[in-house]
Parts: sequence; structure tokens; C-alpha cells
Amino acid sequence: MALIRSWVDSANRADCPFPLNNLPYGVFSVAGAAPRCGAAIGTMIVDLADAEACGLLDAGGAFAQPRLNEFMALGRGKWDAVRARLTALLAEDGHRDLPLAPMADATLHLPIRVTEYTDFYASRNHAFNVGALFRGPENALPPQWTHMPIGYNGRASSVVVSGTPIRRPMGQLKGENGPEWAPCRRLDLELELGAVVGADSTMGERVSVDQAEDMIFGYVLLNDWSARDVQAWEYQPLGPFQSKALGTTIGSWIVTQAALEPFRSPGANRVNPLLPYLAEKRPGLYDLTVGWSLNGQAMARTNYNVMYYSSAQQLAHHTSSGCPMRVGDLLGSGTISGPAPDQTGALLEMTGGGRNPVMVNGESRTFIQDGDEIALFAQAQGDGYRIGFGPCAGTILPAQP
Amino acid sequence: MALIRSWVDSANRADCPFPLNNLPYGVFSVAGAAPRCGAAIGTMIVDLADAEACGLLDAGGAFAQPRLNEFMALGRGKWDAVRARLTALLAEDGHRDLPLAPMADATLHLPIRVTEYTDFYASRNHAFNVGALFRGPENALPPQWTHMPIGYNGRASSVVVSGTPIRRPMGQLKGENGPEWAPCRRLDLELELGAVVGADSTMGERVSVDQAEDMIFGYVLLNDWSARDVQAWEYQPLGPFQSKALGTTIGSWIVTQAALEPFRSPGANRVNPLLPYLAEKRPGLYDLTVGWSLNGQAMARTNYNVMYYSSAQQLAHHTSSGCPMRVGDLLGSGTISGPAPDQTGALLEMTGGGRNPVMVNGESRTFIQDGDEIALFAQAQGDGYRIGFGPCAGTILPAQP
Repeated sequence: MALIRSWVDSANRADCPFPLNNLPYGVFSVAGAAPRCGAAIGTMIVDLADAEACGLLDAGGAFAQPRLNEFMALGRGKWDAVRARLTALLAEDGHRDLPLAPMADATLHLPIRVTEYTDFYASRNHAFNVGALFRGPENALPPQWTHMPIGYNGRASSVVVSGTPIRRPMGQLKGENGPEWAPCRRLDLELELGAVVGADSTMGERVSVDQAEDMIFGYVLLNDWSARDVQAWEYQPLGPFQSKALGTTIGSWIVTQAALEPFRSPGANRVNPLLPYLAEKRPGLYDLTVGWSLNGQAMARTNYNVMYYSSAQQLAHHTSSGCPMRVGDLLGSGTISGPAPDQTGALLEMTGGGRNPVMVNGESRTFIQDGDEIALFAQAQGDGYRIGFGPCAGTILPAQP
Repeated sequence: MALIRSWVDSANRADCPFPLNNLPYGVFSVAGAAPRCGAAIGTMIVDLADAEACGLLDAGGAFAQPRLNEFMALGRGKWDAVRARLTALLAEDGHRDLPLAPMADATLHLPIRVTEYTDFYASRNHAFNVGALFRGPENALPPQWTHMPIGYNGRASSVVVSGTPIRRPMGQLKGENGPEWAPCRRLDLELELGAVVGADSTMGERVSVDQAEDMIFGYVLLNDWSARDVQAWEYQPLGPFQSKALGTTIGSWIVTQAALEPFRSPGANRVNPLLPYLAEKRPGLYDLTVGWSLNGQAMARTNYNVMYYSSAQQLAHHTSSGCPMRVGDLLGSGTISGPAPDQTGALLEMTGGGRNPVMVNGESRTFIQDGDEIALFAQAQGDGYRIGFGPCAGTILPAQP
């Protein structure tokens, strides 16, 4: 697919993250107005609430809400119709009176009310690396790992939008004479993609991988901030809890499944066949370059297609017990890591558990220090255009003892 | 405290679960009317929405909602004021025109919109028994267990009200030649109390145990249905996931903290001092007899005061990382088990992992069979009155392969 040209000139540049091929959804506000839904185009935001008020779109008033949940709940038919209509309105011969706001003047808000948040563990490199550090190489990869997407329920209330400062947590840390109460000393990031669920499922009924695909509205960048020392002391046998509840940052823009369609990609090679309920008819991952930086220095770069399970497989597995899914559920992909240190999505892996410091702008780092800013990025490279996700960044505030 | 007599005669019987001392909140509907909030008194339900419409109560319209979240969000001052007002209206010299509906004619609904659900692991007997079965007696109790309330995030969407049938899940089970896809064969209950959080906390800020007490609106019975074979295969290293997502049943009535005040009780003896952030000024558990039955046969009975951590301690720990809590959050106490088999809150413990079947109405049981009904109960015995929780029951439907 080639670039679809728009009358919004800034959207036609080859390095623009938001060409007309992308059209990601978010929630924004400009001075004096209430937050409402928008779509990014070039350096501008389409004011979808105003566009509907002018009669240019029809979404039953959903875009006037300060979250996309109500729009998502209208269903895939409406998602497709609005995308087609916006594409026509923004095309070179489109409608130049469409209400636009400069992105530079806008405040971007959390794009969805996160209903529930689940985090998975789907990069084999990451699972092996972290497992080896926590349990030794012989117990690194759990025996079920190649048979099912392993995940745990996270804490939806701690999901925040890019730019929100994150406070270093206090916590129980293992000490020589019992636990101590101290600021986290091994604060880490996790480079992930988050799938946004846009449809409900019914309690007691399972969803196939194909049905799961249809339920996914789009994807955001996601940083699952992690307190590794809290995690090591707390996580057995019921999994991570407070080590993952200090905050999870997501990007402001939800890139739709439709925009990613040209970039479908198979994932990592299977080491054993999957049970039929996890079989997928077409590749469920995407050829997406992802990476992260610390205080502006690029630290790692890899591809989302290193993952072993797609979001659709994760969603299908999530319903395998009959667990109902709901509009606004967020599924973290798991940390995206390639095999090499400069392809890892967490400092824990990059530094071998803190044993091998890395240099950042001339300073040594093992884990994140107060004041450090972590920024994630993701992009798909098309033929003369690029699908970007916008920033997903956060700065660490000192602990409050 | 003695019985507070009411003009509703059925509330004055010594064996009534809902005397005026109790006044639990729920959501009910009667033929042709929308679900609204109510309070149980004897064999009747006070229609709180109608009572407010008649000018007898003031809750800003919150009682007309089909959930108690809006009322809880009004804060403890309003909880206290409404309780005092209802106590006066229902006292022997009270207001006999208060709108009442017979409980026998009412449908009882999920009393809250569950915002997020967290399940803990706070009975030392249960943690040891289950740990020994999953990991052997030498690794039974994790080293941090006596230092922190261990918990995991559960799935709020799968919480249902008493009486809702629960479908036996399918799942991945460990087989001799890799996993198989099969109906759960080791379906179990977990006898718990759930604390209902009635106030928000702020992200990045911790809540003390005292503040946590003030945030708890009340308690419900809670059965955390568990697929033990799914759990054994999936749970390491990130904790239980689909094994706990088939359904969690809660009772219809939220017994307020105010009603339980006379029954405060210390918990299990501490084996080591707690870190100061978990210290409590007064006993946070309650002297509550709890138990469960299978197809009407009483199976086990113990006391909530065997627990090692109170809900307030669990809530304080839940915020230790700065994790924000929200109105409608539900915190499961963890399975309540005494040391003897007939004091255990799960079949896994009672039958020694299925090795020692128990007899139920002349039939042998290790785990739950299709068609079985599990019912929990809880009550506090006062001076001539009783605080009951109402039923918390569910029947198992066959799996859908």
C-alpha cells in the first residue's frame, strides 16, 4: 500500500507518524473545552465531536465523551464506516472545513477508561532471560510456556497516559535479617504493545482466535514499570502484585488494527504444535520496529514480530475458562525483547540483572534513577509512509518515604 | 450490644439474620420495577429509592441506581447518617409508612459494580496446606508470607451474585505427553469474605491501616471458584489466571463495618513483628462463624478470626507501591481455613489433594461434580441477636467442550 495523500500537508511527509493511512484515535482537549475524542492527522487533530456536531460523521454522540469506550462499543461495523468516512473527508479532494486543532496546542488524555488490565509474557527471549535471573537457567522457561500464553491480571487503576510522572515506589525488599521497608532500588521499564479490546464477550463462552481478532480495536505503546526487588520478594506463588502497580504508561494514540493490516507478520518459530483453540488462520503479529530510549539516548531496538503469541491468541486464551471480556480491557503483549542486549525491552535483561552496567550519555546505569525519562517508540514502515504510535514517555519522581 | 427491636416483627426473632442491628445493603427488583438499592430488615427489604423519593432519606438520588457504588462514593459521613436515620425509622417507635418489599418476592442483583477484584491468601492453615500440596511441605509457606499479605489481581468481570450458575471450565491440563484440552477435573470452592472498598485513594500515595479501615464500606461472602488442575499447570511464575476466572460468587448483601463493630477480634498469633506500615491500632478481624455446605450437607465450619491479616492490612499493603484504590474494589480475604479437615474452606485441603474422599449425602466426593451446589454462610452471634450475611450459593453446570 502506498501513501494516501491528504489536504493536510503535514500528513504527506514520508517521516510523518500520522499520515492518512494511520488515523489513530485519542482523547484531547484545547484551552477552555472539555476533553473529547480526536484522530491524529499530520500535525493536527480532527475534532471528532465537533465533526459529528457539524453533521460530517455519525457516531451517536460517542465522540463527545472523554474516552473512546462508547465509540468502541458501537462495534466493528461502525469502526469501519467512520474510518472510511474520515479517509474520504481528509483525502486530497476531501472536506476542507473539517474541524482541526493543532496537536501542539492540545493536551492528550488517557484514550480509554481501562476496564481491566492483563499483562502477558510472550517474548521467548524475555521469558528466558528474566526466568534465568530469577530462577536460574535450568528453570528459566516454565514447561507450559510454549503451550499457552502466560499472563496475569494487572491493576487497571494504575494505567496512566504518556507524560504522567511516575513515583518510585516504597516496598518490602528482602534483607539479610528479614525484609526492610525502603525505596525500590531496581526500578525498570518493560517495552510492550497493548491491545485495546473493543467488544464484550459472554461469561461461560469461549472466543476463538478469529473472533478475538475481530474484538481488538487497536494497539497502544505500553510501559509496564516494574520494581524488580519488590517483585523478587513478593512474587511466589501468586505472581507479581505491588511490583507492577506503581504505574503502567500507555501512549496517547490507539493505532487501529485497520492501519496495521498491511504489516501482518508471522511470529517466532513454534517449538511444538499449539492446541487447536490457539491456532490462528493468518499471522496475528505485525512487522513493527519498537524500541526505547533513556534521557534521549537510544537504548534498544527490536521488532514486535519476535513475539511467540499474538494479542488475538492471548485474548482467546483469556476466555478459555469462560472469563468474560469487556470493552476497554487492555492486554499487554509482554516485554518485547530480541536475543541481543541492545534488543531487550527491560534493563533487567540488558544489564544481566544489574551486573553489567550500561552507559547513558556518559553516565553508568543498571536500573532507572530519579529524574530519568524513559520513552518508547514503535513504527511500521510502508511504501513511502510510516505508521507511528506517538510518544509513550514517563519521568521518575523520587520515592516518598 | 443487645437486640435493637424493630416494628418489623420478623426482625426481632433471635435466629433472624437481618435484625435492625444488621441493616445490610443490596440491590433488588420486584416485578415490573427497575433494580434499585435496598436494605434488609427481617423478611423484608426497605426500598431505599422509594424512601428517598418520599423524603424519608437523603442520598442525592444514589439509591435509584442499580448498584451501591454511587452511594458508597458519598463517603463515610453519609454512610453513618443514613444508617442512623434508617435505624430510627425502623425502630419500634419508627415510621411505619417506610416502603418495604417482601424479600421472597424480590430478585437480588449484584450489589456493586465491581471496579477491580483482588484476592489474598491470608489463612496460614490454608497457605500451608495448599502450598504443601503444590510444592511439598518444605516449600509450603513462602518466606515472605508472615511479613506481607500476599495477593494477586483477579478478574472483576467474572464476579457474579449468589444464585448464578457457574459453568465448569475447559482448560489446558498437564498430560503425560504434553498438555491436553479437557474439562476441569478438580473443580473446587474457596470460602472467603470479601471487603468492599467504598472510597478512592490517590495514585502515588499510601494509605495507612487506620485510613484503610475507614475506606471499607462492608463485607460480603465470597466463593472464589478454582480449577485446581488448570491452576497447577498455569500458575508459575505469574500466578493463577484462568483457573480463577471461571467465576467468583458473592453474596447479595453487604454487611457494613458498623454492624460488625461489636465483633472485632484479634487474628492468629504473629510469628514475627510486622513492618510499621502494616501495624494496626485495634483488632481488624471479626469473630464470625463461617462455613460451607455441599448439596445441603454441612461440610466445614471455622471462624474468620483464624486469619493472619485483616482486610484493612491487605488494603494498606495494596497501596504500598502507590497503587490507587477505587470505589467498588473488592478484596477477597483468602480462603478461611482452620487446622482440622472439617474446618477447611476448600476441597483441595479437606481431601488432601483428592487422596482422601469425603462422603456427601452418601456419595463420595473429592472435587465438585456437575450439578453440585455449594453454599457458604457466615454469622456473628450477639446478645440475643445474630448478624447474618444471607446466602452465597452456586450450582455447577457441565462443561461445554
